[in-house]
Amino acid sequence: MHSITYHPIGIVHSPFKSPEGTPIQSVAAKGTEAIIEIFPQFSEGLTDLEHFSHIYILFDLHLAQKKELMVVPFLDNKPHGIFATRSPGRPNSIGISVVILDRIENNKLHVKNIDILDGSPVLDIKPYIPQFDVFENVESGWFPKNKETIENKIDDGRFCK
Amino acid sequence: MHSITYHPIGIVHSPFKSPEGTPIQSVAAKGTEAIIEIFPQFSEGLTDLEHFSHIYILFDLHLAQKKELMVVPFLDNKPHGIFATRSPGRPNSIGISVVILDRIENNKLHVKNIDILDGSPVLDIKPYIPQFDVFENVESGWFPKNKETIENKIDDGRFCK
Repeated sequence: MHSITYHPIGIVHSPFKSPEGTPIQSVAAKGTEAIIEIFPQFSEGLTDLEHFSHIYILFDLHLAQKKELMVVPFLDNKPHGIFATRSPGRPNSIGISVVILDRIENNKLHVKNIDILDGSPVLDIKPYIPQFDVFENVESGWFPKNKETIENKIDDGRFCK
Repeated sequence: MHSITYHPIGIVHSPFKSPEGTPIQSVAAKGTEAIIEIFPQFSEGLTDLEHFSHIYILFDLHLAQKKELMVVPFLDNKPHGIFATRSPGRPNSIGISVVILDRIENNKLHVKNIDILDGSPVLDIKPYIPQFDVFENVESGWFPKNKETIENKIDDGRFCK
C-alpha cells in the first residue's frame, strides 16, 4: 500500500521542550497553557471554532524515535503491544490530544491542559463533540483504574533516541 | 515546515463502498460490522488489545477530494470553518473513529459500529481510555444537540470529487 504524505497546518508552542518531564496525557497536564499557531493560509478554517470548549489536536510525535511493536508503557511494568498502549513510539507517529480551547487570537489558539511537546507539527484540529466522542460501558484492559496514578505520571524519555 | 510521510499499517474492509450513504459518525453506524486487517508485519503490536472494548482507528480519508476552508457540513445548512467541523474534506485527510472491538483473529480486528469506507488505509490503532478521552462540561458550538439528528444522518457525497 502506498505511503501517505501530509503537510503541517501549524505548530505547537508549549513549555515542554523535551520528552522527559512532559505529562503523558492532557489529563495529567492540568493548568498548562500553550499556543497552537495555525499557519496564516489556513486561518479561515478556524471560523466558528471559538464556540467549542474542547478540541482534538492531531499532531506528529516528532521526537519519538524508538519504534518497537512490544513496549513497556509509562503506566505499567510489563510489555504490551504498541497498539494496546498510547505510547509515543508508534509505527506512524500520530498523536491525538484533547485540550481546552481558551480563546483564539487571529491564527493563534490559546489552549490549556496540553501534553504536547514544543515544536510539534500540527496535522489537524477537530472539535470534540460529546455525542460523537463519549462512550459508556468501556473496558480498558491493562490500564490502571486509579486516576491519581495517571495524573502524576510524566514522560521519562524512554521512546526517544 | 517539511511534509510528513506515513506508511499504512492496515486496511479497512467495510460494507461502505462509496461515500454516499455512509454513516457520518460511528454513533450513526450502530450494528455495522467490519474487519480491520492489520498487515502481518505489525501483528505483534496487537498483543493485549483484545481486552479493550473500544478502540480509536486513525485512517486516511482516501476518497475525500474537495478541500475548502469553509464548508457546509452534513449537520447544518450554514458554512463553518473546516476545523470547526468533522467533515472529511480537510487539509490533511486524517479521520478518527471510535469503534467497538468485538474480537481479534490473528491480524484481523472484528469491529462494530464503524463509519469508515471500505479500502481506507489504516494509520494507527489506539485503545480508548475513559480516563484520557472522556471530558465533561463541554460546549460544542453550532453542533445540533438532538442526538436523533446525528444518528439518522448519512453522507451525501459532497466532499468527493
